[in-house]
Amino acid sequence: MRPQLLDSSRVVFDFVRDVQFAGKKVGVVPTMGALHAGHLSLARAARATCDIVVVTIFVNPTQFAPHEDLSRYPRTLEQDIELLAGEKVDVVFAPDSAEIYPPGFSTYVQPGSVSESWEGQYRPGHFRGVTTVVLKLFQMVPAQTAVFGRKDYQQAQVIQQMVRDLNLPVAIQVEETVRDSDGLALSSRNRYLTPEQRSRALAIPAAWQHVQREFNHGITDTSILESEMRQILEDRQVDRIDYAACVHPETLERVSIAAPNTVVLLAAHVGTTRLIDNATIGNATP
Amino acid sequence: MRPQLLDSSRVVFDFVRDVQFAGKKVGVVPTMGALHAGHLSLARAARATCDIVVVTIFVNPTQFAPHEDLSRYPRTLEQDIELLAGEKVDVVFAPDSAEIYPPGFSTYVQPGSVSESWEGQYRPGHFRGVTTVVLKLFQMVPAQTAVFGRKDYQQAQVIQQMVRDLNLPVAIQVEETVRDSDGLALSSRNRYLTPEQRSRALAIPAAWQHVQREFNHGITDTSILESEMRQILEDRQVDRIDYAACVHPETLERVSIAAPNTVVLLAAHVGTTRLIDNATIGNATP
Repeated sequence: MRPQLLDSSRVVFDFVRDVQFAGKKVGVVPTMGALHAGHLSLARAARATCDIVVVTIFVNPTQFAPHEDLSRYPRTLEQDIELLAGEKVDVVFAPDSAEIYPPGFSTYVQPGSVSESWEGQYRPGHFRGVTTVVLKLFQMVPAQTAVFGRKDYQQAQVIQQMVRDLNLPVAIQVEETVRDSDGLALSSRNRYLTPEQRSRALAIPAAWQHVQREFNHGITDTSILESEMRQILEDRQVDRIDYAACVHPETLERVSIAAPNTVVLLAAHVGTTRLIDNATIGNATP
Repeated sequence: MRPQLLDSSRVVFDFVRDVQFAGKKVGVVPTMGALHAGHLSLARAARATCDIVVVTIFVNPTQFAPHEDLSRYPRTLEQDIELLAGEKVDVVFAPDSAEIYPPGFSTYVQPGSVSESWEGQYRPGHFRGVTTVVLKLFQMVPAQTAVFGRKDYQQAQVIQQMVRDLNLPVAIQVEETVRDSDGLALSSRNRYLTPEQRSRALAIPAAWQHVQREFNHGITDTSILESEMRQILEDRQVDRIDYAACVHPETLERVSIAAPNTVVLLAAHVGTTRLIDNATIGNATP
């Protein structure tokens, strides 16, 4: 069955409150649309534990920096709804920009310490836009559970810090990254890659897979691991490396000695497309 | 009956959700304690329209600037509870600082355009602290209605802007300022005034009462009205004027021609005590 399509925050709020009043558990999956199997795995995770699943689709202007790809960000609402029907999603909340940012809008969430490094450095204002829209969506769709993808690792940490710091009554569930068979993490931006670019983009999973192998061989000095990642990215000709770092899984501060829960964070450009990925070092099978 | 005293955000949240689930309407009155008849009028307003009334008492450190009076701010919890018992308040939520700001806390609400002028200029960071703690309290105590006093006029506007901008599902009710018989607006800080200072502090209500009379006599040029207010404050020897302005009731931008809904905002120091007050120009009986 096709999910119900709503665009009014008032209507979706009343709907969620009504079903909760009837004792049901509601899960929300915030997305920017252009859905792929990664998003669908989030909807499936919500479906598995919740009575009612709401997927939000909103290309959020405040999380794009001025030089970024807001206008060319893919919009595929009809196809998204079809895909979500296949996951038995109950409601798609797809508001327009004026519903979310009416004239005079000027109150933001200022994200916490975890937002300052990495993406925060390369995309000024990005996380302020993310936390602001996510907090707003949590108020409009006051679900008990919200599901996010691990591909945006720092985003998930920033949101969890916001939820803790601001006492938002929602449980955050983070689901594993879904990858194509070649190892590339699914992303709505992958459709911009030419076949030649896509082949160079595989340097990114190759880099963290290499680090996992090195760690399994006893190499824990992260300056070595990071320089080997850079070497792989350069050898396989990504066009620019933003960062390739070994960090603490929660604070996202750089660590000097890798441990099994250390996280590798990567961001690189291939052509005009910027890609990010991450992995936990100790997750590889030796 | 004495209100129930709670200090755990989890317990108060569960309590509110449970009574709402049972169909009851909850009202919350956020305060910093040191209660006076002004606060009690807010509790009474909540009592009049809600089934369950929660008063929060928390001296919020993040809304005090470094040079301000956090440590000497009056704390009178036992007496506050007695007074609230008299208003048939159901719950007093009085968390300690570690409950509200645990280690690592770093996510804030960045208040909107209405916060930038007046108090925002004289108390940097003040409204960021206010909006952050109020949003947190609204999550911990998810009441349908929240009651604030009009004495902090700009604060009420900043909170209403936050509620609109961030889609917080709570109705804001603003109650009239309560005054002593001499006209001084009630404030927890009035207890710092010596009798001589208090007599000089009466320049503040005298100033806006004068403007109301002038307006009733047809004077609408706010540069005249503002300069007459300053003259009164100086003649009656307040120690420093921060501002005395005629502003738009919602944007708080200065207006050049006064209208019946124009608001007069005042802030002045008497001794070491800083006092604020406000009034709508058209509210006086001619």
